[in-house]
Amino acid sequence: MDEKIYDVAIVGSGPAGYSASVYASRYNLSNVVFGKLPGGTISEAHKVCNYLGFEEITGFELSQKFFNHAKSFGAEMQIKSVVDIKREGDIFKIHTESKNIFESRSIILATGTKRKKLAIPDEDKYIGKGVSYCATCDSNFFKEKIVAVVGGSNAATTAALLLSEVATSVYIIYRKEVLRGDQKWVEAVLKNKKIKVIYNTLVTGLSGNDKLKEITLNTEFNGEKLLKVDGLFIEIGSEPNGDLPLRLDLETDEVGYIRTEEDQSTNIEGIWAAGDMTTNSNRFQQVVTATSEGAIAANSVYEYLKT
Amino acid sequence: MDEKIYDVAIVGSGPAGYSASVYASRYNLSNVVFGKLPGGTISEAHKVCNYLGFEEITGFELSQKFFNHAKSFGAEMQIKSVVDIKREGDIFKIHTESKNIFESRSIILATGTKRKKLAIPDEDKYIGKGVSYCATCDSNFFKEKIVAVVGGSNAATTAALLLSEVATSVYIIYRKEVLRGDQKWVEAVLKNKKIKVIYNTLVTGLSGNDKLKEITLNTEFNGEKLLKVDGLFIEIGSEPNGDLPLRLDLETDEVGYIRTEEDQSTNIEGIWAAGDMTTNSNRFQQVVTATSEGAIAANSVYEYLKT
Repeated sequence: MDEKIYDVAIVGSGPAGYSASVYASRYNLSNVVFGKLPGGTISEAHKVCNYLGFEEITGFELSQKFFNHAKSFGAEMQIKSVVDIKREGDIFKIHTESKNIFESRSIILATGTKRKKLAIPDEDKYIGKGVSYCATCDSNFFKEKIVAVVGGSNAATTAALLLSEVATSVYIIYRKEVLRGDQKWVEAVLKNKKIKVIYNTLVTGLSGNDKLKEITLNTEFNGEKLLKVDGLFIEIGSEPNGDLPLRLDLETDEVGYIRTEEDQSTNIEGIWAAGDMTTNSNRFQQVVTATSEGAIAANSVYEYLKT
Repeated sequence: MDEKIYDVAIVGSGPAGYSASVYASRYNLSNVVFGKLPGGTISEAHKVCNYLGFEEITGFELSQKFFNHAKSFGAEMQIKSVVDIKREGDIFKIHTESKNIFESRSIILATGTKRKKLAIPDEDKYIGKGVSYCATCDSNFFKEKIVAVVGGSNAATTAALLLSEVATSVYIIYRKEVLRGDQKWVEAVLKNKKIKVIYNTLVTGLSGNDKLKEITLNTEFNGEKLLKVDGLFIEIGSEPNGDLPLRLDLETDEVGYIRTEEDQSTNIEGIWAAGDMTTNSNRFQQVVTATSEGAIAANSVYEYLKT
């Protein structure tokens, strides 16, 4: 049990959490940032090209810069997950996976989102044996292999482009008839001779033995419903991470995004939320929108604690 | 007369404008960015420490990175001011100070705000050498120094409170006899032992050599018209730049900030606004909030033009 009471505990170590921490530190608020994966999901991005100031940088490098910025400004870094938060009077008690308890006067929740699953039979069974949710992490296991990517937005097109650098061929399987997201990525995909897009199609089954060998489509492609692949990358979007919003009785929308006011406050006094897991920023989930929400949340916490 | 019709004309060359441009380019929207001062007001910041990813960078350097990012991604840069925008059917005609006319299908207005100045001799000379218009940006440069804040509303009281955390003493110099704005801030100021409020007083002069050393008051304080300070924070408010909102019949609040929806749209179809001149981001005017609003605006323009 750490006896220190922090001004603000920032739960989540992505762009929103680190930006909140930088602002909190600038306001002289003692702060601790919790998160098992420094940088959050952006750390797994192959390349980031749209965070103003960095024309092209790997997600890993950008995450390191964010981490270092927050740390050097005074954040205490706890590279661990938070499993529960309980209020006792004016103090929040933050319970980590390693059974430590930290205390703080306020909370900024910024635990982001996680990749959605296809929810088809045997999906979990093949994770790490052909099924992946992170092309940046796993593409190199598919050198000179055949892979498929499920999805049609930026996550899918960028994953396919990355995979095309190592695999012999890449299918994109998309339920709609036109790819969406950045047109630069869409054009690059359509020009790439290794990539074949299969439109208006769903993946409904997985088969193999130790490893994935074939996927089943809901409609024929080249006269076959079975498609031979060594890897399947599922890039169909995301949903809020974890059950802390539920545990904290936070108001969410129907799919679990935390309802936040313009100052990033939630329905619970003393708790703010920022980043991809909120309903703010026109629901545009980007590094720039997350850093903005984190900064606004820290400013709101500062105003709250000073009065 | 340039015959090209741009998808989007971005009026304003600060963080909001450049971020909008980067996103527009990623969506393959042809775009032109207008602005006489690349980087906008941030280019004049002595140091920027709160834009996540850069622990300490001059405003000038950061502005250059922003400019280069937008330019390398495809923005056409027009280093000139826009004096008028007129709609003709579906097309906007953008008139520049140099009498050129550019055409575009949509507009993102991001011309920012300007800090109100005291308008006293040598004010410009001491900017970055003691005179500042942004306590959030610059307070940490005044650790264990003596500073003064000019103003009496929220901007001034919050600046003084923030400065009191690092400076040895803080004067608030205000022309009226009672501080205004949120009473919670006023109370916090009056309780703070480091802060001394000098009422019914104006700052009329600045002196020093390389750096600010003293300010002149219009009336004696402790028997002296000269007051020794290391920093002077001028917090008498800011106001939106230029008269384009008025010319375009945009809806604003009572002091001229453009009313924007969550997608950065304005009351006029085809015109979006982003950055410090809008009512969004909880009115927290920062580089991170501006880049976020610019990205959201570009995304909204993309959705508008493709449908």
